[in-house]
Amino acid sequence: MTFDSNYLQALTLEEKAAIVTGMNYWYTHNIDEKNIPSIMVTDGPSGLRKQADKGDALGLNDSVEAISFPTASLTASSFDKEMLYQLGKQLGQAANAEGVSILLGPGVNIKRNPLAGRNFEYFSEDPYVAGTLGAAYVNGVQSTGTGVSVKHFAANNRENQRFTSSSNIDERALREIYLPAFEHIVKQAYPETLMCSYNKLNGELVSQNKRLLTDILRNEWGFEGLVMSDWGAVANRTKSLQAGMDLEMPGRGDISIDDIVSSVQNGNLEESVLDQSVLRVLKLVDKHKTTTSVKYDKEAQHAFARCVAANSFVLLKNENQTLPIDKKDSILIVGELADKPRFQGGGSSHVNAYNVVSPLEAATNLGLSNYAKGYSIDKDVINEADIKEAINKAKEVDKIVLFAGLPAYLESEGFDKTTNDLPQNQIRLIDELSKLNKPIIMVLQNGSAINMPWVNDASAILETYLGGEAIGEATWDVLTGDVNPSGKLAETFPVNLSDTPSFGTFNASKTDENYHESIFVGYRYYDLKQLDTLFPFGHGLSYTTFNYSNISVKEENQSVVVTFTIKNTGSVAGADVAQVYVSNQTSNIEKPVKELREFEKVFLQPGKEKTISIALNRRAFSWYNADRKAWQVDNGQYDIFVGSSSRDIKLSEAFQLTFGTDIVESITPDSYLSQIIDQPNPVVTDALKKTGIYEAIQTLLTNNKRNIELLENIPLRSMAMMGITDEKINEFLKLIK
Amino acid sequence: MTFDSNYLQALTLEEKAAIVTGMNYWYTHNIDEKNIPSIMVTDGPSGLRKQADKGDALGLNDSVEAISFPTASLTASSFDKEMLYQLGKQLGQAANAEGVSILLGPGVNIKRNPLAGRNFEYFSEDPYVAGTLGAAYVNGVQSTGTGVSVKHFAANNRENQRFTSSSNIDERALREIYLPAFEHIVKQAYPETLMCSYNKLNGELVSQNKRLLTDILRNEWGFEGLVMSDWGAVANRTKSLQAGMDLEMPGRGDISIDDIVSSVQNGNLEESVLDQSVLRVLKLVDKHKTTTSVKYDKEAQHAFARCVAANSFVLLKNENQTLPIDKKDSILIVGELADKPRFQGGGSSHVNAYNVVSPLEAATNLGLSNYAKGYSIDKDVINEADIKEAINKAKEVDKIVLFAGLPAYLESEGFDKTTNDLPQNQIRLIDELSKLNKPIIMVLQNGSAINMPWVNDASAILETYLGGEAIGEATWDVLTGDVNPSGKLAETFPVNLSDTPSFGTFNASKTDENYHESIFVGYRYYDLKQLDTLFPFGHGLSYTTFNYSNISVKEENQSVVVTFTIKNTGSVAGADVAQVYVSNQTSNIEKPVKELREFEKVFLQPGKEKTISIALNRRAFSWYNADRKAWQVDNGQYDIFVGSSSRDIKLSEAFQLTFGTDIVESITPDSYLSQIIDQPNPVVTDALKKTGIYEAIQTLLTNNKRNIELLENIPLRSMAMMGITDEKINEFLKLIK
Repeated sequence: MTFDSNYLQALTLEEKAAIVTGMNYWYTHNIDEKNIPSIMVTDGPSGLRKQADKGDALGLNDSVEAISFPTASLTASSFDKEMLYQLGKQLGQAANAEGVSILLGPGVNIKRNPLAGRNFEYFSEDPYVAGTLGAAYVNGVQSTGTGVSVKHFAANNRENQRFTSSSNIDERALREIYLPAFEHIVKQAYPETLMCSYNKLNGELVSQNKRLLTDILRNEWGFEGLVMSDWGAVANRTKSLQAGMDLEMPGRGDISIDDIVSSVQNGNLEESVLDQSVLRVLKLVDKHKTTTSVKYDKEAQHAFARCVAANSFVLLKNENQTLPIDKKDSILIVGELADKPRFQGGGSSHVNAYNVVSPLEAATNLGLSNYAKGYSIDKDVINEADIKEAINKAKEVDKIVLFAGLPAYLESEGFDKTTNDLPQNQIRLIDELSKLNKPIIMVLQNGSAINMPWVNDASAILETYLGGEAIGEATWDVLTGDVNPSGKLAETFPVNLSDTPSFGTFNASKTDENYHESIFVGYRYYDLKQLDTLFPFGHGLSYTTFNYSNISVKEENQSVVVTFTIKNTGSVAGADVAQVYVSNQTSNIEKPVKELREFEKVFLQPGKEKTISIALNRRAFSWYNADRKAWQVDNGQYDIFVGSSSRDIKLSEAFQLTFGTDIVESITPDSYLSQIIDQPNPVVTDALKKTGIYEAIQTLLTNNKRNIELLENIPLRSMAMMGITDEKINEFLKLIK
Repeated sequence: MTFDSNYLQALTLEEKAAIVTGMNYWYTHNIDEKNIPSIMVTDGPSGLRKQADKGDALGLNDSVEAISFPTASLTASSFDKEMLYQLGKQLGQAANAEGVSILLGPGVNIKRNPLAGRNFEYFSEDPYVAGTLGAAYVNGVQSTGTGVSVKHFAANNRENQRFTSSSNIDERALREIYLPAFEHIVKQAYPETLMCSYNKLNGELVSQNKRLLTDILRNEWGFEGLVMSDWGAVANRTKSLQAGMDLEMPGRGDISIDDIVSSVQNGNLEESVLDQSVLRVLKLVDKHKTTTSVKYDKEAQHAFARCVAANSFVLLKNENQTLPIDKKDSILIVGELADKPRFQGGGSSHVNAYNVVSPLEAATNLGLSNYAKGYSIDKDVINEADIKEAINKAKEVDKIVLFAGLPAYLESEGFDKTTNDLPQNQIRLIDELSKLNKPIIMVLQNGSAINMPWVNDASAILETYLGGEAIGEATWDVLTGDVNPSGKLAETFPVNLSDTPSFGTFNASKTDENYHESIFVGYRYYDLKQLDTLFPFGHGLSYTTFNYSNISVKEENQSVVVTFTIKNTGSVAGADVAQVYVSNQTSNIEKPVKELREFEKVFLQPGKEKTISIALNRRAFSWYNADRKAWQVDNGQYDIFVGSSSRDIKLSEAFQLTFGTDIVESITPDSYLSQIIDQPNPVVTDALKKTGIYEAIQTLLTNNKRNIELLENIPLRSMAMMGITDEKINEFLKLIK
């Protein structure tokens, strides 16, 4: 087929309207008379949720068996682009095998608040991490022929009233924080589709937001794919088409079709606008009309899920090398989450897992079967007998491995959390066990940052997030040292919920979510406000140690090359994630203390070292100038930090950037005196002297020492206050022209 | 004179232009041919700065002698409306005596950040305190026939780049935080003039901001007086007239006049617009053309300044009743600020004080002359000999009275501070003296909140702010117990500067100041973020104790009457400031935890009690709805707190407000299911059942317990996700119509 105007002429208006209207939950509309088949889309950032029978958008009904991979909170912690590419590839192959054309993922929204219900499905609080890992994932999926739908575009950062609440965001925060992950993926990975989000953006529903869906996405970024609606996001089909929202999902049958037809007929919708969306759907259908049916190896995918999880877990704490567990140690496994693990999130990403191996089962296979339930995960009720059993058993062992985390009923798509505390029955158990003064190894299962008032009671803490179906095997891979942990937090764990940037206003209004903190999200906020964190962004320990040395920073053409050496100074092989932050010392704007601009995961054998060269592009030094509607790079000083976490900076180097734009402040009546007298230009100096302004300034300066500061804040136009007439000021301005 | 169109006809265009152009620094333009005299305006919120000779706007040149009263930071701490009225009266009488028609004050801007250079001239972080005390002051001044100029209208909250920087504020914060003090004064005290501020507001210079100067000020609030420019604030005279900025100060002579004349002639400015401003100036001149010349008693004013200061000082801390000083105690007075007190701020409010009595001089008069300099106030250099002398002398005494504070060079109009730490030489002295383990009584002189890392080293702390020329006498009045302190902080003292709401972004950009924190300024922020404070808003101790009891809250017509009893339970007479806070539990918006809505200073003899009745009006329960452009009162629950500080709540009572508007959420396709099923209306229930929606919801509810939360977040229009067709939804909506 060639999708041009000739082709469109063969379609009736009703057929066109049907084409942009999903046939049902998971299929596009076929039109057999015109040889237009239907293609299938399916949920699943972290595994397929292909519903054979009754469809729904909340993971309520059954789906076919598939591998449950770790969710994005965990995979992001790998900071491993290659691994995310491989993950995408596995998912794409599964989709192929199941006849699914488009996989609905990845989710790349920013984790703005730890309470947001869907954080577990998202990568990071940092847009570069989300964009880079998201792009790798998309490239992986699409390398198999399966398409993706990058979601939820955009600024869908809360679940409460998500269908109607307006995310009110200033332009700079939108461009620097909430859009870049999408922009990066669109520009680097050419996703076949994007999914528009439910919410409003600055008062306008995203599904009918032309500025976002057309002006920015297509005209600025050059997106050539299709935009589909999140399930049920369309409120007004005509407006959504006008905005550039091509495909409504799920279709609402005749209602949608009639709506479009009558809008065209009564002139409310130009048929050419509809045609554009029709062509985009047809192009997608055409690409996927032949479904390949490559079989896929579920066992191999399970093994890969195990590998992903083990290489993503974050070792938050490890006092006195409590981990890895020594084979001589006697241990007790405590906590029902060892037996009934929480390995995935609730909602549309919920997978009918192929083969869940619990940590308890995996431990048993290793000969470790000493277990006490300790608490119930299904209900937050304190059971004294369970606690007593755990204590009694714990008394007999060297170390306690305590599984804890957030139950499924507290964390899901569809609603936001109201607390990030563990349930009371778990906190009580931790408290009682800590009284034994034995090393406690905490193993955490949760979708997002949690409170840890008990942090000092734990000798070691392993964050396993939502680890997918191979959670059990992966957990013991790391606990025993078979895998050296190398994950890093892609989000800050705050000391208290009250430290978080949007605390107190998040979800305060049903209708409006005001992004007061602007660009200061995640570590950008904790850095700015000089707040301690429980565990900082980028943090994660290893069973080995690394040394950083020999930083050099060089400008090359339009980029800045940062070179440094990293060495494994410990006794086991392992990987560190070298994080390169840029600190803008130059621009005359509100600025984060530093921003992550690149990272590289480096695997090293003991004693080995590697020299890393990282090229930072223009964008790494840019800020979005909302007045000029453009990205801006200012010439001047920037500091480069290389860190093993955002709060563990190993190397730093200042340099002068020159490939940007000089900040030129021309002299106007609004110019401040300090700026004028700082000019080394003899023309300016002469003019100052000729007009008597120089003398007036000198008099002011000798008058009182605080007048030095005053000069900074008196503009030329207000020198009348110092006895300089406007005639003199105008004369001065003429002289320096 | 009658200022009507007939009168205007007698004036030439040039004469009109001259009338709205200040003749020089302090005088309006006289036109002798038309019998229009000149009237004088003069700086001085806290004392006259009448310049007889060379004028300037920064307190650089000499002025006539006048009483230096405490600055607004201190007078606000009195929380005493009657005293502010008396203060205004004294200032008005002085102005009369000096032939000054308009006193340029009070300054009622909000203390948004502790570093703002001009905080000392402003009342509070709370708009109600600023507005109420400002109105009392204005009523006092104007009762004498002298006019005022309430400044700086509006949102002038930093000094750096104050002539050009834009205060970018959302509408609700503007209406609820930055404008109410002006609004209250305009509506309650009819000030003769307002002074427009230098800065821009949301991108537009205030001096040419029609929305602020005409739409809001005149059309909404009914202001009938004159607006003059801050000195040098006019950038474009034509635009400023069009905006409603009547009188340019100081005039720029022919430049301004020619500008106006040519604008009218070439049609850029309608002459009727100029006429309005001319009439406003003439009305003011006419009112003040006859200058009375009542003599004024400087000794009596000095005594009043002493009384104001002593009744405003804030006793921040008083461990073990260290204060008042026992006459038997031997004491050492340390710190050069005792000898060279800082009693006023720098800049346009700087007064040529009549009779400064230093704390050391006042002490000597009491027979207390044991003094050591300790540090130099003029320069932050540590002098070991000074410290040693202080230590040696301190070893011999029972108690140390240590005077400390911010030097004048750190705190002034014209620039902002970069730290709120005391100078290093003072910190060192405090540190050394604390090692003696003797009671240290800190007496502080500073214009705004300071850091106190040494707070635990002080047994008592008396905050005297900038106490005016009678500072010495007033200080000992309180230290000795002759006056029982009754001041309360009108601003929060944060633990660290980094705790402040605008930390990190304040002054970050030269061009834009973004008010990210919105309405959460001062205690509204510390409450919201659950932050500890060093000393909270409203805090201040007494030498006696008070008991609060018997709260009752009653709605009466359009107001809420709060009644309670306060009793002096100590052994000396004293006053407490009863603070009434309202906590809105109802409105579906971002809300402060509580807001001060009224206060009353209550003086009681020992053992005596008084029942206080405070009526809160509609405004006390209102929030500004920017969408509707109106103040809104929602019916529902409000909590009333009566406190002795914002963090020392003595009484609380919940009540249901009924004189507002019911929050009615009608059912639309956007309505969430939880809202629909909560309706007790049988019509709705029947319709739900008839259309099958009821059954679908029940199925969802029984399916999984987390679906209860999901219901909150699924709108009717998206029930397609649960298998309900749009036809059914439309049927339901028709049935309930």
